[in-house]
Amino acid sequence: MNNFVFQNPTKLIFGEGQIARLAKELPRDKKILVTFGGGSVKANGVYDQVVEALKGFDYLEFWGIEPNPKVETLRKAVEICKAEGIGFLLAVGGGSTLDGTKLIAAAAVIEQDAWELVCNPKVYGGTLPFASVITLPATGSEMNRGAVISNVATGEKYAFYNTFPTFSILDPTTTFSLPPFQVACGLADTFVHVMEQYLTTTGISPLMDRWAEGVLQTVVEVAPKVRENQNDYDAMATYMLSATMGLNGFIAMGVPQDWATHMIGHEITALCGTTHGQTLVIVLPGVMNEMREQKSSKIVQFGERVWGITEGTTDERIDRTIAATEEFFRSLGLATRLSELGIGEDVVEEIVRRFRERGTLLGERANVDYAIVERVLRQRM
Amino acid sequence: MNNFVFQNPTKLIFGEGQIARLAKELPRDKKILVTFGGGSVKANGVYDQVVEALKGFDYLEFWGIEPNPKVETLRKAVEICKAEGIGFLLAVGGGSTLDGTKLIAAAAVIEQDAWELVCNPKVYGGTLPFASVITLPATGSEMNRGAVISNVATGEKYAFYNTFPTFSILDPTTTFSLPPFQVACGLADTFVHVMEQYLTTTGISPLMDRWAEGVLQTVVEVAPKVRENQNDYDAMATYMLSATMGLNGFIAMGVPQDWATHMIGHEITALCGTTHGQTLVIVLPGVMNEMREQKSSKIVQFGERVWGITEGTTDERIDRTIAATEEFFRSLGLATRLSELGIGEDVVEEIVRRFRERGTLLGERANVDYAIVERVLRQRM
Repeated sequence: MNNFVFQNPTKLIFGEGQIARLAKELPRDKKILVTFGGGSVKANGVYDQVVEALKGFDYLEFWGIEPNPKVETLRKAVEICKAEGIGFLLAVGGGSTLDGTKLIAAAAVIEQDAWELVCNPKVYGGTLPFASVITLPATGSEMNRGAVISNVATGEKYAFYNTFPTFSILDPTTTFSLPPFQVACGLADTFVHVMEQYLTTTGISPLMDRWAEGVLQTVVEVAPKVRENQNDYDAMATYMLSATMGLNGFIAMGVPQDWATHMIGHEITALCGTTHGQTLVIVLPGVMNEMREQKSSKIVQFGERVWGITEGTTDERIDRTIAATEEFFRSLGLATRLSELGIGEDVVEEIVRRFRERGTLLGERANVDYAIVERVLRQRM
Repeated sequence: MNNFVFQNPTKLIFGEGQIARLAKELPRDKKILVTFGGGSVKANGVYDQVVEALKGFDYLEFWGIEPNPKVETLRKAVEICKAEGIGFLLAVGGGSTLDGTKLIAAAAVIEQDAWELVCNPKVYGGTLPFASVITLPATGSEMNRGAVISNVATGEKYAFYNTFPTFSILDPTTTFSLPPFQVACGLADTFVHVMEQYLTTTGISPLMDRWAEGVLQTVVEVAPKVRENQNDYDAMATYMLSATMGLNGFIAMGVPQDWATHMIGHEITALCGTTHGQTLVIVLPGVMNEMREQKSSKIVQFGERVWGITEGTTDERIDRTIAATEEFFRSLGLATRLSELGIGEDVVEEIVRRFRERGTLLGERANVDYAIVERVLRQRM
């Protein structure tokens, strides 16, 4: 096991009716900015519950944080924080709303522009405290420090790290009305988050392996129930908890990670606007196949413990494991080939060009170069 | 899934050489009381590492916190805290040293006697911050709020809850020199902690089930390696991490618990001085057998996923699961029958008398009364 430092102070408040606890958790001596995405929280009743809980608090509303939150939008909220003396931020919505709020909270306490924080972490000078009510289980943002921020003007999209949310409220009933495609992408995103922390060298931490496999097994088991009936409280609660536990550091203690699939997926989103979770399920089987020798031991373990594949040669087991993984993604109703989405040769060439020019090396051992990326993408056409 | 609130802010600092990080983590503007148990930390080099890291800090040492820490001892440390203006506590040793320190830290900031805190939680008035260097993996105290405190004068032993440790440092090399019996009891304690959070109603949280089973599977796999070679770093690290993850709330989100085995075990320790982990492995198979109808579904799941028992009638599977569990405890070199430790009829009668007089009802559904306790103990003779 590698040495590690783990800490995650976020207070997780989980269950039906918990949005009312905002009245207890929010500070009464600070002016609060409540941030929202589009209007879905008005349609599903979340907004009404929040307003009810916030009676008697001093707060403002900021609307319009979009999926893949744009720094151009977030700057407006930063101005409001500074002008209005905001002391606490509450994000209400999906992971993007919270991601954007993480940047607003940090940008509100410095003089530099918000995008500076993304490009140059040294500018970070602390943060306003922030919390969330999360309605779309996928990103894990509710219990981690990360955010992904886009800049329309420069065509860039990068990760940013703030501190952890003070608290996050997760009420599974808020997911009942989510569009099924978003749910499918959320399940896929959760699955691939775990894979990126798991599909590395074997034997580093048997316990972390078991916990990663535990999230994968749970997602695989609950996915058909979720797909069948989005009003199944227990199924949605299990999906929601799995999404949070998939990316809050709990399965990452003392183990290496490998985010190659995400890095390649981000480029597809950047070029084609494809939903994040959808890109991941296209890319992952290709990465597994290209890394089949280096990762053979872990792929075999994954196949055995998650898909029950216990027979055949190593190569046969790896083939069947990759096929089972792709089959699971297809069972979610997602495409697993670029061509299904009309993504062609030109996009592949542009992505390969970008990785070649940047000299980016991906993966656990930083040995996934542009040539391997090209082979991954060509087999996913 | 049940509604829940989860929060665990402890910073976990894990790995070889991490004791040196004390110099970075401890406050320089506060007077520190460093608490110890007996002298084992002087023999294994931990004390020297702590003293080296504490160069330049303003600190005092307090020695002599015993296994099953006694309030009589802890009061002396409370007096020192008050007289010397101590502002931070660092426990160095096993779970008992830290348990005792949790009480010292809370008693140092109130006027009432320390035992008042144990008997009447309303007396709690905050705490001095505290942290730990843990050298015996077992109790999980390093990442939870709990402590168990004894009172020699009154013959009582109760749980006490403070806040979480600020940080805990776990260096697996500090466990290399532990007495093998302590290691066996630590493995057993970890296993039973998980069972008490797991062996309840099925289907409440599939993810928490998987994570609990993951700790159990890991402990079962690593135990022979630990028993064979206590200098195996990876094995000891896995055991150490499992002990912490077994009782820090990570496997307890939204699920019921059932601490009947611990409650019965505590009585054996109180009457006979038997080591805690040793009592648990005697009691657990009896509790499983007595609760075999109520818990049949979970026992079958446990048998299948942890012991690979997949065939036979439900009753046969339960029998084989209980037998496999007892066999595992015996493989640790522990006794699994009261008679092996010379504990006889008189002790059983006294324990049953106590439960009858107190009217205590144990278990997930509070339906384990003195009559069931008697049946449990008689079959473990």
